[in-house]
Amino acid sequence: MAEPSGAGDSTPLECPGLDTAAGEEFLQEVFQILLQEGVRKSTDVTQKVCDWKEPQELRELLDLELRSDGEGQERLLQRCRDVLRFSVRTGHPRFFNQLFSGLDHHALAGRFLTETLNTSPYTYEVAPVLVLMEEQVLAKLRELVGWSSGDGIFAPGGSMSNMLAMNVARFRRFPESRSRGNWDLPRLGLFASQESHYSILKGAALLGIGTDNVHLVRTDQRGKMIPEELEKEIQRVKAEGSEPLFVCATSGTTVLGAFDPLDAIADVCARHGLWLHVDAAWGGSALLSPRLRHLLAGIHRADSVTWNPHKLLMVGLQCSAFLLRDSSGLLQRCHGVGASYLFQRDKFYDVSLDTGDKSPQCGRRADGLKLWILWKAVGTRGLAQRVERAFSATRYLLEQMKRREGFQLVMEPEFINLCFWFIPPSLRGQENSPEFWEKLGKVAPTIKEKMIRRGSMMVGYQPQGSHVNFFRQIITNPAVTRQDLDFFLDEIQELGWDL
Amino acid sequence: MAEPSGAGDSTPLECPGLDTAAGEEFLQEVFQILLQEGVRKSTDVTQKVCDWKEPQELRELLDLELRSDGEGQERLLQRCRDVLRFSVRTGHPRFFNQLFSGLDHHALAGRFLTETLNTSPYTYEVAPVLVLMEEQVLAKLRELVGWSSGDGIFAPGGSMSNMLAMNVARFRRFPESRSRGNWDLPRLGLFASQESHYSILKGAALLGIGTDNVHLVRTDQRGKMIPEELEKEIQRVKAEGSEPLFVCATSGTTVLGAFDPLDAIADVCARHGLWLHVDAAWGGSALLSPRLRHLLAGIHRADSVTWNPHKLLMVGLQCSAFLLRDSSGLLQRCHGVGASYLFQRDKFYDVSLDTGDKSPQCGRRADGLKLWILWKAVGTRGLAQRVERAFSATRYLLEQMKRREGFQLVMEPEFINLCFWFIPPSLRGQENSPEFWEKLGKVAPTIKEKMIRRGSMMVGYQPQGSHVNFFRQIITNPAVTRQDLDFFLDEIQELGWDL
Repeated sequence: MAEPSGAGDSTPLECPGLDTAAGEEFLQEVFQILLQEGVRKSTDVTQKVCDWKEPQELRELLDLELRSDGEGQERLLQRCRDVLRFSVRTGHPRFFNQLFSGLDHHALAGRFLTETLNTSPYTYEVAPVLVLMEEQVLAKLRELVGWSSGDGIFAPGGSMSNMLAMNVARFRRFPESRSRGNWDLPRLGLFASQESHYSILKGAALLGIGTDNVHLVRTDQRGKMIPEELEKEIQRVKAEGSEPLFVCATSGTTVLGAFDPLDAIADVCARHGLWLHVDAAWGGSALLSPRLRHLLAGIHRADSVTWNPHKLLMVGLQCSAFLLRDSSGLLQRCHGVGASYLFQRDKFYDVSLDTGDKSPQCGRRADGLKLWILWKAVGTRGLAQRVERAFSATRYLLEQMKRREGFQLVMEPEFINLCFWFIPPSLRGQENSPEFWEKLGKVAPTIKEKMIRRGSMMVGYQPQGSHVNFFRQIITNPAVTRQDLDFFLDEIQELGWDL
Repeated sequence: MAEPSGAGDSTPLECPGLDTAAGEEFLQEVFQILLQEGVRKSTDVTQKVCDWKEPQELRELLDLELRSDGEGQERLLQRCRDVLRFSVRTGHPRFFNQLFSGLDHHALAGRFLTETLNTSPYTYEVAPVLVLMEEQVLAKLRELVGWSSGDGIFAPGGSMSNMLAMNVARFRRFPESRSRGNWDLPRLGLFASQESHYSILKGAALLGIGTDNVHLVRTDQRGKMIPEELEKEIQRVKAEGSEPLFVCATSGTTVLGAFDPLDAIADVCARHGLWLHVDAAWGGSALLSPRLRHLLAGIHRADSVTWNPHKLLMVGLQCSAFLLRDSSGLLQRCHGVGASYLFQRDKFYDVSLDTGDKSPQCGRRADGLKLWILWKAVGTRGLAQRVERAFSATRYLLEQMKRREGFQLVMEPEFINLCFWFIPPSLRGQENSPEFWEKLGKVAPTIKEKMIRRGSMMVGYQPQGSHVNFFRQIITNPAVTRQDLDFFLDEIQELGWDL
């Protein structure tokens, strides 16, 4: 197994095997490209949002193949330009397609810092600054939830945060499940609204609980969970011999932006001794606004909360906080294994700062720094203004929409999700005809295709329940102006006019 | 619920709510700081590896508190400098503490690009370039495994990749478990070696299988799983009424760097119809070297593979590929839920490119781009040289160690993990005394503390099995020279001399 002596010839150890001077020069060049063609163009409203290419054409343009030999600097710089050119500009003021959008320069600086540091905040030893920042940011988020103590960790996305909640809930009730699995447990029941995020189903499957054991509770016409229906579902599940465990209330549903009534749900949970998790991945940021935090009234009664600052606060993908009210070390007991190569107990510093064992992950990304820098840059007040501006922009768009013909709301928005149909002139007045809805369901996909091919803007659509495809407009980016919103309506009208 | 008219006053929509000119200026400044104080100092051997501060002192130095008001640009730039100054320099040629280290400028450029793009590769629509790159990179990694077809996805770290393997294995055997959970299943048995990564235990707990149902198979004195012992364990578990499901072989164990004999293990799995997963998070990169790939002989017989290019290939945290031999869509069937707001079936392009539903995550980071850029920059050959240089450096250090007094190997290294004790002069010749091992176990932590306080280098230590604390030296960074390796030995001797 010993290395043949020849190995040393091809890789002499006298000199470094990396050319740092050339590397730094390359980084300088790339950074100017990033700034000009990434950051500046990405946020420039006169640019296209995307430059659509069919997959096969794009594969060829990018010359994706990975070969034996490396390439020269000029070629590589061109590749960086190509990546930027053919990517979607999510920082563009007319990108409304996801629950994230916009480009915050401070947060981006934090991300660059994080990438340069390239470490994992599992131990204080290798990430002292990042561990302390994570601690600080999580405490601040908990404070906004209304907790003066507690625990938490950043997870790779809101779905994983929701799954951690389920796992910790199971562990608290049945600590032996960690070692023995689900077999000795009664069949568990999980509850979430019909409008809850699909990660609850994914999590139930992953955790060995099963999607059939997720009971989707009926919502009212605004998409909010009906507490009385939750109560009924719990009773029904109990009567069937299962054991209710966990309720996920949603603060800001993905499509409609609905906020479940937390206080009433907390009452039901208290009555039955159930873990209350609040999936506030989307709506959690409303806690920053004194004007909007009433939407989450009662959230302090939750056992755990998911909150994704990468959405409304523009921190950058990913930044998902899993927050826990418990301060007894539940998270550590649930997930910790105490690997001796990483979490040595005989270190010379306070090993409670080696927080990595609280997570099912080993190496983790340091998602706290970028939020910390952003927070320092704009303050709590600036974050609140961002949320309120998004809310105001939605109200403006709503008013304008009501003044224009052909726009029909799915419902009055409670938050930032503005859901609507555009009814082309050819379909107007035919609302009672049997083919109306079927035809209307084809309008949004066609408009979407046209806008992507044109590159003028991007907005999402979906069917939901009995509703055929409708648009979901989301404005989180503070760079969006009234002009962009007027453009949005004009563009929908223009693209949908002759359908 | 309507917004009071006052909201418009504080957040007028006529102008953008972000100052992009100031933001770009800030980014320019930050980039120069990053380049000088991050990249350059991080890779400069004359700098310290770390500037140790006690947690409370560091909290105060960083002024962590998050306040109502934002701060000016100069203050923020100073904060960026502080973050770099007090962080551990993982790119330093004398940082040997983890299985990742070093700073590759091309990969870092890819990370900056990824952060600037700020999108999730769940749909082609919002990440056309990133989706195609992921497809290409995964295919290339599979090719190195020996598969001409298959599937895969990037996961947030090797632990998650291993958990995906368990979940897919369970789903293939018991598709109904996805909807019904584990209750109707026989008690499952998972198998991994005593030296396997702790994520197998974490995964068993998360998946509702339970850590007791992970059967740790005995290893030989080099840390390799003994196939005959695996056979015996399987028989024993069957006799106890459980159903063996999944075997995780390790290619490159975390501490010892041992490679399990894959062919013999694959024979056992074939005989019993078990899923064979290879955790090659660490050792997978040896597949790039024609000289070293024999260590993984038989890997093409696996059902799935975990491979973390963020370790040996210096791609940057995180880049963990979960690779699957199956090409029937198992991954999609196992994890897919088909959320209609994201994975609309009536899109105008080939929706098989909307790969996000293959993952239990929703939003995911785009971890393929940085590897793609690095690969383009240095070629397959350059990557192979990197692996071989790491191997050669380890061989050099090994030879030097054998020439010096006081260094005692835990075992001859097969790969890049060089595990050893340093025996201070005061303990030499006392190997047979009853207190020898107890005293020796205190040496590594003490030397470690001294090196961190001095900031001269970082290397990990751990106890393992019957072995008291020993150092695990890992050299992955091609910037490491012979001089650094000599320094390493000198420094250990100096710090441990008077213990």
